[in-house]
Amino acid sequence: MHRYRSHTCGALRPSDVGATVRLSGWCHRVRDHGGVLFIDLRDHYGITQCVIDPDSAAFKAAEAVRSEWVIRIDGRVRQRPAGTENAELPTGAVEVYITDLEVLGAAAELPMPVFGDQEYPEETRLKYRFLDLRREKLHANIMRRGAIIDSLRRRMREGGFFEFQTPILTASSPEGARDFLVPSRLHPGKFYALPQAPQQFKQLTMIAGFDRYFQIAPCFRDEDARADRSPGEFYQLDIEMSFVTQEDVFQAVEPVLRSVFEEFAEGKRVSPSFVRIPYAEAMLKYGVDKPDLRNPLVIADVTDEFLREDVTFNAFKNAIKAGGVVRAVPAPGAASQPRSFFDKLNDWARSEGAPGLGYIVFEEEGGKLTGRGPIAKFVPAEAQAAIAAKAGLKAGDAVFFSAGPEAKAAGLAGKARIRVGDELALSDKDQFAFCWITDFPMYEWNEDEKRVDFSHNPFSMPNFDHDAFMALDPADHATILGIKAFQYDIVCNGIELSSGAIRNHRPEVMEKAFGLAGYPKEVLEEKFGGMLNALKLGAPPHGGIAPGVDRIVMLLCNEPNIREVVLFPMNQRAEDLMMGAPSEVGPKQLRELHIRLNLPQKQG
Amino acid sequence: MHRYRSHTCGALRPSDVGATVRLSGWCHRVRDHGGVLFIDLRDHYGITQCVIDPDSAAFKAAEAVRSEWVIRIDGRVRQRPAGTENAELPTGAVEVYITDLEVLGAAAELPMPVFGDQEYPEETRLKYRFLDLRREKLHANIMRRGAIIDSLRRRMREGGFFEFQTPILTASSPEGARDFLVPSRLHPGKFYALPQAPQQFKQLTMIAGFDRYFQIAPCFRDEDARADRSPGEFYQLDIEMSFVTQEDVFQAVEPVLRSVFEEFAEGKRVSPSFVRIPYAEAMLKYGVDKPDLRNPLVIADVTDEFLREDVTFNAFKNAIKAGGVVRAVPAPGAASQPRSFFDKLNDWARSEGAPGLGYIVFEEEGGKLTGRGPIAKFVPAEAQAAIAAKAGLKAGDAVFFSAGPEAKAAGLAGKARIRVGDELALSDKDQFAFCWITDFPMYEWNEDEKRVDFSHNPFSMPNFDHDAFMALDPADHATILGIKAFQYDIVCNGIELSSGAIRNHRPEVMEKAFGLAGYPKEVLEEKFGGMLNALKLGAPPHGGIAPGVDRIVMLLCNEPNIREVVLFPMNQRAEDLMMGAPSEVGPKQLRELHIRLNLPQKQG
Repeated sequence: MHRYRSHTCGALRPSDVGATVRLSGWCHRVRDHGGVLFIDLRDHYGITQCVIDPDSAAFKAAEAVRSEWVIRIDGRVRQRPAGTENAELPTGAVEVYITDLEVLGAAAELPMPVFGDQEYPEETRLKYRFLDLRREKLHANIMRRGAIIDSLRRRMREGGFFEFQTPILTASSPEGARDFLVPSRLHPGKFYALPQAPQQFKQLTMIAGFDRYFQIAPCFRDEDARADRSPGEFYQLDIEMSFVTQEDVFQAVEPVLRSVFEEFAEGKRVSPSFVRIPYAEAMLKYGVDKPDLRNPLVIADVTDEFLREDVTFNAFKNAIKAGGVVRAVPAPGAASQPRSFFDKLNDWARSEGAPGLGYIVFEEEGGKLTGRGPIAKFVPAEAQAAIAAKAGLKAGDAVFFSAGPEAKAAGLAGKARIRVGDELALSDKDQFAFCWITDFPMYEWNEDEKRVDFSHNPFSMPNFDHDAFMALDPADHATILGIKAFQYDIVCNGIELSSGAIRNHRPEVMEKAFGLAGYPKEVLEEKFGGMLNALKLGAPPHGGIAPGVDRIVMLLCNEPNIREVVLFPMNQRAEDLMMGAPSEVGPKQLRELHIRLNLPQKQG
Repeated sequence: MHRYRSHTCGALRPSDVGATVRLSGWCHRVRDHGGVLFIDLRDHYGITQCVIDPDSAAFKAAEAVRSEWVIRIDGRVRQRPAGTENAELPTGAVEVYITDLEVLGAAAELPMPVFGDQEYPEETRLKYRFLDLRREKLHANIMRRGAIIDSLRRRMREGGFFEFQTPILTASSPEGARDFLVPSRLHPGKFYALPQAPQQFKQLTMIAGFDRYFQIAPCFRDEDARADRSPGEFYQLDIEMSFVTQEDVFQAVEPVLRSVFEEFAEGKRVSPSFVRIPYAEAMLKYGVDKPDLRNPLVIADVTDEFLREDVTFNAFKNAIKAGGVVRAVPAPGAASQPRSFFDKLNDWARSEGAPGLGYIVFEEEGGKLTGRGPIAKFVPAEAQAAIAAKAGLKAGDAVFFSAGPEAKAAGLAGKARIRVGDELALSDKDQFAFCWITDFPMYEWNEDEKRVDFSHNPFSMPNFDHDAFMALDPADHATILGIKAFQYDIVCNGIELSSGAIRNHRPEVMEKAFGLAGYPKEVLEEKFGGMLNALKLGAPPHGGIAPGVDRIVMLLCNEPNIREVVLFPMNQRAEDLMMGAPSEVGPKQLRELHIRLNLPQKQG
């Protein structure tokens, strides 16, 4: 018989009754039923009920055993007594009568139990992560993470992509976050950077002719932690393709994500096709560039309606005259809500810095739609009807208004849309609702510096005729600010999984694009010279995307905190409490790395 | 038609003749055959011959095209003229007559060509890695690397292992090499370390109950470069298993490696089962703990033979009296070698610091084995026969001797074994010859400090009765130095792919083991407290191994230099010449990280 086990703790079935078996595992729960000891023995594969009484030679040894001790037992499989079967356990029809028992690894007093669901402070959970990981939920999350990543890999390979490993000790990458730096021992005064993303390497892989790249890529950003972001490292499904248009990227990525989500959705619906929404349309309809499409509400622009001569609501009229807009957030069925519903939303809007949310409640009066509410009297029936038509409202519905400068009004409307949807419980949460956001503007107006600047990614290809682009006058702000980029986001349930782009692979276009944003050629050369050189030696058109693996796993595990889906996460202060990282290092090591400490002055 | 291609450059066949197609790729070679231009268009998938003459509207555009330009062409597929087919290309029966041509990415003058096999200095190759990677051999190596890793992953999963991601920003790990450090922004004066290996994390994964772990794990060691080692990062197939003996690890790993090697061996033989050789036996028979078993020679110990009273070779006798040994390296068939063969080996031995290699050449004289050579006269016939028997020699063979203190004599014999094997061309290179080296000593004598110290890995489980081990007297050096560990290496063709071990999972045994090597409990607590704490809270018996991925790929690509099998390697000086890493960073960044430079004094 094997030294430790003939079966795992999830293996035994009624067909094994009568067999002599050997199991090893953790004592999940030890119960004393009047001199008969029940030990639920647990391993990765399951739990088996083991029993011992004073007739067994191993009884004395069994009495010493405590929770989370690792033991090896020998015994006979027998049917559980009628009525004591546990239908929830695959092994629940049988038990093992213990004839021999060996302690493989005793456990001191536990700082937190493994059995049960009691909450423990995160600090304890992280310091004793190896205990926390034995708990059912977290154990299952981590296994699910692995299965999701396996599935992503498999589907990418089936889609004709090849996996590559790009360097982790490298140069600073232009992703805009703070780099982690690594001092060089061999090159005094110089530093490596950990990659914020393998962006340049994946583009170089395309320029090297590999055609279809992917990597479950570790990325590093020295940014403060958020619930959905680890402080330090995270993984992305990094993808790049040559000789492709934006449409090809969509066609390659969409089936992978859809099928992985379908595989792990546990009955939730997954968008059969991912709707495409231009950035400007998203900002109008949803007030945000990562709309949660589970929420069915669609914002309407009612600026024209409030400009009508017969409308006398001057607060909005003045806002429009100052260059602003009015947006309408429908609240279907809200007419039956109490006054407090409207007051609460108004209070919330004020807490957001807005003067309030004007609203109209629509009712039917004599077969005609009639509005009531604080501003209804300033909006005659015909204008009300126009608003109702624009916002898709009928009797019994209400509408909230957000007015002001476009960005502000749109943002507030977007937030109001979410609140109204939540308050009225309009979202069907049993789904993963995907969309592509497309046509991001290439440039935006930097009001502080009164100049044109890049809006998102300076390395995306502008969606503009090549010759016309090269001929653009940098002073022609109107045209420049209207240029869209071949840049896109993929969004699921209001969470941005990734940005992506068709890259600017033409050095002359890149120089022009930087020039339009006021960056001289030298800046480009200095910062991205390596890339620019590569583009000058035969670069194919290429593009890609990099969906966040941790976010995908969070969605599929229904966990709002990234630490619930990472094996050994750091805490919010970027510390590994279990291993004691970061830690102090000796003067010899620092000397070898040609650095010394520069500690903050202590307060006297 | 698709914007860039209807087919890849590897797709067209005679069945496509007559079709209108679109291809994109690099101009591999452009030839002008008297006004007719031939463009070999290359992409990741293959090469297609494209042809254009002045009758085509695109001729002018085609005339501008140079090597490595990226172009898109439209054209008609036609049969190549009889006699001009290229049987070596899958597309070699057809060509495309170009009707339209678009330059997608021009190329400036190339610092090195892609077409052809000309050697280029490594500095040029690394600086323009994206060009070098377009070359056939390197491109194929990198694709092969990916296929090997995919195969390793698939086989590990099929073997019941799960893949996990362990942290990259972590604490210093006890692997004995130099760490790469990462200064912490949030914790002034503290540093993360990049993992030399995920050793502690994989053990913690076992303690967390996950049972079967693997990872294609990036590892980081700030060591100087060697041909088979990148300066910086490398990958290992990291493996750990719970509730296992050494035998289980062998049974899990051996089929994975064997089948991956068989898959990629291209006809070379792979050991059908991996022979197991105890460390002491390896040192005796091969003079090294990573024997190249392609070489059939086996060293014999002939100390006793030289101790015989009738043997009068005092140089060896004295060496033996001083505690040394004599080892015999057989040289089958070497009797027919010229004198220079023996002189060359003698000269080599002297260059290794030995006084020379004594040798005897065996011949048949009247049906009897008779030795000749410089020391034969000191060894009477009976002793010669005994030596011949021990070393498996017959007439026509020779034998070389290495005498001295055991470690030295064994080492020299081991090197002589390789030289003799090479000189006589005895190795069958058409194979991958695997072995396990087992039973490494737990401790060794530290002659400098006159004390017992760990021999290899302090965290391996001693192969010794638990109670007897706990009762060991630290002064009982003889017993302690005789203890073997459950530690093993896997070796292929003389290359160590990995060490592995059954881990010491019992805290009291670990404390004792460290105590025997003179380390007080506090040292253990301080350095490995996190691990020790985990072992105290219910640890299963576990063990593993971590075969080097880069070395496996080097073997299977038959490349002696690791830079030929890594996508974007650093040079020997740990620089990325393409991206310019490491590089200087600004004072603001250093301030944020609480460090300042400590540069070497410039020589006045």
